[in-house]
Amino acid sequence: MAAQLIDGQAIANQIQQEIKEQVAARVAAGKTVPGLATVLVGGDPASAMYVSMKQKRCAKVGITSFHVELPADISQEALEKKVADLNADPKVHGILVQLPLPKGLDEERVLQAIDINKDVDGFHPLNIGRLAQKGREPVFLPATPAGCIELLIRSGVKMEGANAVVLGRSNIVGMPVALLLVERNATVTICHSRTKDLPGLIRQADILIAAVGRAEMVKGDWLKEGVVIIDVGTNKIETDDEKGYKWVGDVDFEAASKVAAMITPVPGGVGPMTIAMLLQNTLKAAALADG
Amino acid sequence: MAAQLIDGQAIANQIQQEIKEQVAARVAAGKTVPGLATVLVGGDPASAMYVSMKQKRCAKVGITSFHVELPADISQEALEKKVADLNADPKVHGILVQLPLPKGLDEERVLQAIDINKDVDGFHPLNIGRLAQKGREPVFLPATPAGCIELLIRSGVKMEGANAVVLGRSNIVGMPVALLLVERNATVTICHSRTKDLPGLIRQADILIAAVGRAEMVKGDWLKEGVVIIDVGTNKIETDDEKGYKWVGDVDFEAASKVAAMITPVPGGVGPMTIAMLLQNTLKAAALADG
Repeated sequence: MAAQLIDGQAIANQIQQEIKEQVAARVAAGKTVPGLATVLVGGDPASAMYVSMKQKRCAKVGITSFHVELPADISQEALEKKVADLNADPKVHGILVQLPLPKGLDEERVLQAIDINKDVDGFHPLNIGRLAQKGREPVFLPATPAGCIELLIRSGVKMEGANAVVLGRSNIVGMPVALLLVERNATVTICHSRTKDLPGLIRQADILIAAVGRAEMVKGDWLKEGVVIIDVGTNKIETDDEKGYKWVGDVDFEAASKVAAMITPVPGGVGPMTIAMLLQNTLKAAALADG
Repeated sequence: MAAQLIDGQAIANQIQQEIKEQVAARVAAGKTVPGLATVLVGGDPASAMYVSMKQKRCAKVGITSFHVELPADISQEALEKKVADLNADPKVHGILVQLPLPKGLDEERVLQAIDINKDVDGFHPLNIGRLAQKGREPVFLPATPAGCIELLIRSGVKMEGANAVVLGRSNIVGMPVALLLVERNATVTICHSRTKDLPGLIRQADILIAAVGRAEMVKGDWLKEGVVIIDVGTNKIETDDEKGYKWVGDVDFEAASKVAAMITPVPGGVGPMTIAMLLQNTLKAAALADG
């Protein structure tokens, strides 16, 4: 059996095309241009790269991005003041504070300072609280977990009644994606580093979300025939070729492809979806601000 | 095999004795008497009974209770104003709004209006959000889920690495207890009405939390030998005797007792723990207010 590839890049491109058309329609109707503020605190190169990618994609779909660079030694008060200014700025519809923050800053307090109607990253503690509660709608869904669900939806995968195994319980992926799957009526098992007999549990999955950050940890013989795999892991490993490295997921892609019904590649699976969902949230934020 | 009984009434009595001593020690040290405000909206007899039970137990441990009764047709604004008054009252350390609220009132907004440092029921959306996130501590844990965990702790049940199955995903029990079990490093499976092969899944549980509200739904042959069962269900069923009814849990107690290592009875299991944890939260709230 050769698994069908879930082409995250193609799906993300399609979503971005949809967003671009909706932004153009907004502007043609005399409404505001959606605006995203990206806040980068400190000089971490990976964070700087992520922010730069987000800005470029904003430009592609017609969303204005406002970049704010702050020193790593900024005080909590000054950072919250900056967030408050962005909350008050009518041109800014979404605020993204790139995580992780440098040491010494209280991440939860900063996230909580963001106006919940501008929290396009979906990490405001209130948004997460609503995600965990039936009958309460978060204003925005966190981008990567929402991207995982969107890949399943657009690939026609039935979540209701499926056994979904989530490997990893991080704040930004594992836990929220588990909550989203419960909301969609999947039976959800949350596995992690302390789980016993991981292969046995994963072998029961109809849907596997791997978000643990360990290169090719999940082996082919851990999988049930016909499983659908969303691989969130992006791990750099050394290679013998000229380049010297490559990116791999949390799942052994080659072996898994022989067993799974569908699988996301790494790169080109979940990665492109994260930014697409962020852009979608920003568009939604602009619509919310229309009143 | 005859299961060991987890005697929730005895454990709750012990906790209440501990609280009583701590309250007396506070007062002897010249600190405030802990105060709990109970807010009853409308005349639902079950809600009125729960509130009355809570007040009586407060009195037993030396906590002052302040009762507020409001008409079912109170406006959202008036109810939130009442909550604001209680937030401002220094004699009131904990505020309990008895749920469910009558139709037409926005429960989430009311819960969110409670000062998070007085949210002794632990249902403030921020508290739930923190529960779902690593490294973020809720100020208070919701009483019934915390009671389930406390029963496991005081019975010496190891949660780390255990396969825990939570049957039910309600806002007030199933979902928060699942989050608490993940925090304690259990591998957690959340099952519900849409789950396929419930017996097969439950048979894998080392720990089963049944919180689905269906009388004796879980059968003896659904259980693994040696499972620990916390039965949150309290279901009234008809009987042929003079009384005409009895209370049973979500698990067939008689059959389960032959297979399980430990099991809570119904009544006398989780029930008494809910109020004990509420009293504990109120004591904690008073300590928080000391500064």
